[in-house]
Amino acid sequence: MIRTMAVVGTGLIGTSVGLAVSRHGVMVHLLDQDETAARTAAALGAGVAGAPAERVDLAVIAVPPSRVGTVLAEQQLRGLAHAYTDVASVKSAPARDVLRTISDPVTFVGGHPLAGRERSGPLAARADLFEDRSWVLTPTRATSQPALNRVLEMVALCGAIPVVMEDQAHDAAVALTSHAPHVVASLMAARLQAGPEEAFRLAGQGLRDVTRIAAGDPRLWSDILQANAAAVARVLRALSDDLSAVLAALDDLAAAEPEREGHSVMRIEELLRRGIAGLDRVHGRRTGAPAGQVRLRVAVGERPGELAPLLGRLAELGAGLDDVTVTASQDRGVLLAEFGVPAVRAEAAWRALTEDGWAAERLQPIAAREGPPAAPGAPPLDRQAEPGRQEALSKP
Amino acid sequence: MIRTMAVVGTGLIGTSVGLAVSRHGVMVHLLDQDETAARTAAALGAGVAGAPAERVDLAVIAVPPSRVGTVLAEQQLRGLAHAYTDVASVKSAPARDVLRTISDPVTFVGGHPLAGRERSGPLAARADLFEDRSWVLTPTRATSQPALNRVLEMVALCGAIPVVMEDQAHDAAVALTSHAPHVVASLMAARLQAGPEEAFRLAGQGLRDVTRIAAGDPRLWSDILQANAAAVARVLRALSDDLSAVLAALDDLAAAEPEREGHSVMRIEELLRRGIAGLDRVHGRRTGAPAGQVRLRVAVGERPGELAPLLGRLAELGAGLDDVTVTASQDRGVLLAEFGVPAVRAEAAWRALTEDGWAAERLQPIAAREGPPAAPGAPPLDRQAEPGRQEALSKP
Repeated sequence: MIRTMAVVGTGLIGTSVGLAVSRHGVMVHLLDQDETAARTAAALGAGVAGAPAERVDLAVIAVPPSRVGTVLAEQQLRGLAHAYTDVASVKSAPARDVLRTISDPVTFVGGHPLAGRERSGPLAARADLFEDRSWVLTPTRATSQPALNRVLEMVALCGAIPVVMEDQAHDAAVALTSHAPHVVASLMAARLQAGPEEAFRLAGQGLRDVTRIAAGDPRLWSDILQANAAAVARVLRALSDDLSAVLAALDDLAAAEPEREGHSVMRIEELLRRGIAGLDRVHGRRTGAPAGQVRLRVAVGERPGELAPLLGRLAELGAGLDDVTVTASQDRGVLLAEFGVPAVRAEAAWRALTEDGWAAERLQPIAAREGPPAAPGAPPLDRQAEPGRQEALSKP
Repeated sequence: MIRTMAVVGTGLIGTSVGLAVSRHGVMVHLLDQDETAARTAAALGAGVAGAPAERVDLAVIAVPPSRVGTVLAEQQLRGLAHAYTDVASVKSAPARDVLRTISDPVTFVGGHPLAGRERSGPLAARADLFEDRSWVLTPTRATSQPALNRVLEMVALCGAIPVVMEDQAHDAAVALTSHAPHVVASLMAARLQAGPEEAFRLAGQGLRDVTRIAAGDPRLWSDILQANAAAVARVLRALSDDLSAVLAALDDLAAAEPEREGHSVMRIEELLRRGIAGLDRVHGRRTGAPAGQVRLRVAVGERPGELAPLLGRLAELGAGLDDVTVTASQDRGVLLAEFGVPAVRAEAAWRALTEDGWAAERLQPIAAREGPPAAPGAPPLDRQAEPGRQEALSKP
């Protein structure tokens, strides 16, 4: 059981850790080279400012990546804690520093909470900053089990989900999912310095989203990029190659060279398609019914406005409106709207639509098409559309 | 007064226009080369499917940029409408096409509503898609005033804000604020095809935001990029130069060449800072009190948790918490929290804090520092902190 902790560096992350574990009765000592920051964190409720009189159970070193090794070595010499972790967003370079400089690698576990805000400093801290977020831990072969367990307990007190990884795998992953995207956002944002004022009347949410993370603290971020330079460069070099190809295609199109037009458009479209394929890995699949869904089909007359109330009803019934397709039936005057609903709600949704007077049919559940005839635990479902309903569809 | 309209192309934008103007009693005829799309739009309530028997007041050509000229010429030949507009997101290339091919440039006004969604097609349409959005109009010297006025009326019926611009200025602006950002999002999203599955456990909102707009329809977007190739290439070439500089700096850092380390870090930090400067143009200024704000200062003891209730109270009083700074007073044991509140609420906020028992003082209003002593219309404010309050701050 952790009873006492120290936080060294009371910025956004350190102060948030203090707030989170203080809620659970842990006594937290707050240290920062900027004394006002430590006092501010204390006044927010993250603990008490100043060094502890006795060795604490766990110390969190919440300083920029390049300073982790030095600060950790200092604090180990002073005997601050029984176990130590850091929160730097790069893990292999700091681990090398640490193992070179510290007196006791046994008590150290590298850590990286996947949480942050554009705002920095203790005033941006929140007790719930880590809730349901991943918190990567990178124990080395030297790390002791008691040290790892203390850090796991702190992660649990913060409401986060521990993920144990090799430090190099971690660094390659964050280069791709966090560090390169940060540079890309900054590259685009830097372009906005040019451009007349009136151009920004045409700016929408898309531009704001693409550039939002560029607002991060430049000094902290150049430190992060330095610590993970090789992995970030690998991602950005591949991106730069794609960019060169797009630029060449755009130049051809701008020059309106008819014999290369088809080729140039294809090159651009191919990049856009690869982008969509990449998106599917972070945003989840956007089309097709996932397993555990049942597809329903409803006939709709084409008198003005007949489809709109159905869509409203579907939203109430929990169908994903992204996934509705409309096709024409052979019979003119009828459109067929097809959509997925979660299997557990399919029966109720079908009944509700039928009672509202819609001609609705259940199609074969996806799970039955792809594998065993019915997903375990799913309610029994008709495999075939009911003949009466089929008729209703063609003769509304 | 517009009484009848035609929409040619019942995708997201065309169907949304139909839904928006139908609410105001305009009779809308929906045409699409895909008949099911037109019937779906009708069934949603966007109008009636099929060509009108008589010439309508206004036709909206809602087809991809490369097809605007051809479709418009066809429809003018058929005598579809008295006036025409398009909705393509590129304006100079279509305008050239149009002026070359159409029989009557007098009745045409180029248009571009700044609204869209990642989803496309009629089912994604919404009657309120354009509300409070900019809608650029690019009349030529040939455009008649009656034609312009019909389009302005339609923009008003859609709830949008008309912005009249030269077509080339429009295209340079959207290259910067929309088309280049789309390519950048796609370039980053395309990288996500690589990378092991576990990397995406570390993906957060930042990555999703940077890449979100890459989900747009690749065929429509390659068409847009082709139509605006030169302007987009100009933005992306400058971005590519910055990227090359960042890559060179990252390579130096990865090689750990100590004599170039300082220079490389500076180069990266400089890009990040330019990004922040660019962000200020779209996200608004993030620091300092704007004119029309008054700054207040409150003394806070540094006992654990004393600052948190003040921040809660400030949020209730409408202060921007992004803008709170905390400094130490000369007297140990007191922190000074400084923040801005809208001038019209400053008096009430000060009173409320004082009644709650906080030692609060009003600082000189920003307007008085920068220009005339008081902003017209602002309530009278004390220029100087009250002496009693000053004392309260240093001896709480």
